[in-house]
Amino acid sequence: MTTTAIAKGLEGVLFTETKLTFINGTEGILTHLGIPIQEWAENSTFEELSLALLSGHLPTTAELEAFDAKLKANRAVPQELLESIKSYPRGINPMQALRTAVSHLGLFDQQSEETTAEARMEISVRLIAQMSTLIAAINRAQQGLEPVTPRTDLTHAGNFLYMLKNEEPTPEQSKLFDIALVLHVDHGMNASTFTAIATASTLSDQYSTAVSAIGALKGPLHGGANEAVMDMLDEIGTPDKAADFITAKLDAKEKIMGVGHRVYKYFDPRSRVLRDYAAHVAEKEGKSHYYQILEVIEKTVIDRLASRGIYPNVDFYSGTVYSDLGIAKEYFTPIFALARISGWCASVNEYERDNRLLRPDAVYSGAVDAHYVKIEDRK
Amino acid sequence: MTTTAIAKGLEGVLFTETKLTFINGTEGILTHLGIPIQEWAENSTFEELSLALLSGHLPTTAELEAFDAKLKANRAVPQELLESIKSYPRGINPMQALRTAVSHLGLFDQQSEETTAEARMEISVRLIAQMSTLIAAINRAQQGLEPVTPRTDLTHAGNFLYMLKNEEPTPEQSKLFDIALVLHVDHGMNASTFTAIATASTLSDQYSTAVSAIGALKGPLHGGANEAVMDMLDEIGTPDKAADFITAKLDAKEKIMGVGHRVYKYFDPRSRVLRDYAAHVAEKEGKSHYYQILEVIEKTVIDRLASRGIYPNVDFYSGTVYSDLGIAKEYFTPIFALARISGWCASVNEYERDNRLLRPDAVYSGAVDAHYVKIEDRK
Repeated sequence: MTTTAIAKGLEGVLFTETKLTFINGTEGILTHLGIPIQEWAENSTFEELSLALLSGHLPTTAELEAFDAKLKANRAVPQELLESIKSYPRGINPMQALRTAVSHLGLFDQQSEETTAEARMEISVRLIAQMSTLIAAINRAQQGLEPVTPRTDLTHAGNFLYMLKNEEPTPEQSKLFDIALVLHVDHGMNASTFTAIATASTLSDQYSTAVSAIGALKGPLHGGANEAVMDMLDEIGTPDKAADFITAKLDAKEKIMGVGHRVYKYFDPRSRVLRDYAAHVAEKEGKSHYYQILEVIEKTVIDRLASRGIYPNVDFYSGTVYSDLGIAKEYFTPIFALARISGWCASVNEYERDNRLLRPDAVYSGAVDAHYVKIEDRK
Repeated sequence: MTTTAIAKGLEGVLFTETKLTFINGTEGILTHLGIPIQEWAENSTFEELSLALLSGHLPTTAELEAFDAKLKANRAVPQELLESIKSYPRGINPMQALRTAVSHLGLFDQQSEETTAEARMEISVRLIAQMSTLIAAINRAQQGLEPVTPRTDLTHAGNFLYMLKNEEPTPEQSKLFDIALVLHVDHGMNASTFTAIATASTLSDQYSTAVSAIGALKGPLHGGANEAVMDMLDEIGTPDKAADFITAKLDAKEKIMGVGHRVYKYFDPRSRVLRDYAAHVAEKEGKSHYYQILEVIEKTVIDRLASRGIYPNVDFYSGTVYSDLGIAKEYFTPIFALARISGWCASVNEYERDNRLLRPDAVYSGAVDAHYVKIEDRK
């Protein structure tokens, strides 16, 4: 067998063009439609960024109002689906539940088999709207609580927090959660977006692509980092133990969860936004238990690692933000999906405008010229 | 923007090694573990080929018996899941139903979150066993019929036909269906196998990978070709109209469904096996309506196209075989999944032994140095 160049993990292989998201890891730059993530976080909303990526431009007032009205009108999901969610076994991984519920949702969508650009856009809006209702319903059903009917007078972020707790969030809570969603809407060609595109490339339907992406996001090499950060904070226990814990880890050359990033060799620009906003909230409302531990870790890590270009990433801060909003850590990855569904849909819709079936190849390195041997003659 | 080489569709890009399946399209060769597909079809069974691919070797009698016993012991699915399947809306695409049911199945598997090689193997066996029960239950539920409890005294192929009709198939029917399954177990790095691997590459669970693969197979560029062949046979109507219909299509340079193959530039080796076996059945039991039409098309197509290396492919024959077994054409793609689940699992398990996150990249060709503009200032 001759040695053939294998692009392991397809790393560095370019397979398509995109006009949506640009990342420069060495300079810590992330832009959507050429606009830095900091500007989106400061000025925009989840709804606006979602529409901007889906449509390819900053929407007009009329466009944004129409999109927002459509999201609100589509928040409810079929009662049969809520009943099914209530019947799921308890104690399951909520990402398995979300994968199942989103797949099930497709069965009720009369348009689900249509794959024109228009149909994909319509279905994308419903998926974005309903993902929120499904995650909240799963969270409640797993605790034996009834799902909360969505409200149409709240923002996407605010309504999600409302459905989770059956309690209207404060404007500050809604805003903080909205910023967290904005920061997670899209991040270039990550593994879940790629899997969604791979599925769509057979001209499969929009629900199948979302379900594939949820399955990929579920893997610990993709989603789940902020959940791991919270596990670490729980393990540390109290702020006074944080510095020693981290120093010991660093001395043993062990990985610190939420620190460093495959792409960013400088500050993750999302982490700065979230850190600043979390600090702002902490100043106003007092430092939470987790925030106090986080502060110590952050200082220790930056003192030791910043010179090597290693900084806390967005997952480092998001877990604490979500925990302080009263969200259980098992739901951090579903919340990642809640934000990323917009990026998945926008990326799939962009790819489908010039679709090409994705079919790379494998090098065969197995047996040749073998023959079937009768079972009684096998050794 | 400099022009960068983009590998569209990842065509020709090699990303991994495999010892499972080898295809040489120009010579019409397909092997599993180096053994030609014709030898598998002639001597083996779906159960044996599945185990051979999962384990990497021809099993001993003891290994095959243990595997077969495990498949049989795992045929039943939870009653709650059957109830859910019965509640699906009528008239849906059965692949959407299958995607949902397989995802739902994962919620009941206590081991579903384990991703060790041993766990993936155990779950693969259950997926192979239960996929059959789910497809049969979906087929019946969509007709308003009760699911049929699986039997453990029938082969995998025979039990599937039994659950579909609530009637024991003849040995010939079971054998014919088993051969069709054998021919579809694996076919190298096709789009659904690749999507399964992409999902697994984040270290996601086995159910997520199966669900992703079902989503990809569902797309018309992948599964569905044999269903399209049957649509054509229905359109033709009677054997006497077949030659004119095909000649007109060929004269107009239109595509004939089930003829030619992206990979095979010679006979698809699977099509020869299926054609020969179908001809054998036709000789013994009389030519079915569809078989008679097929025979005319085959002759017309080979006369006109064989000199250019274009032949009827496996989808050309499988639809008629399935129809003559009393299977509705909407279920041809689910049956593709019924066979291919073994190939998906074997390929994922092989990849996971040396996993690498799949993350190719996209070229950014969008706006640069843009800034957020307040909505009232947009044009």
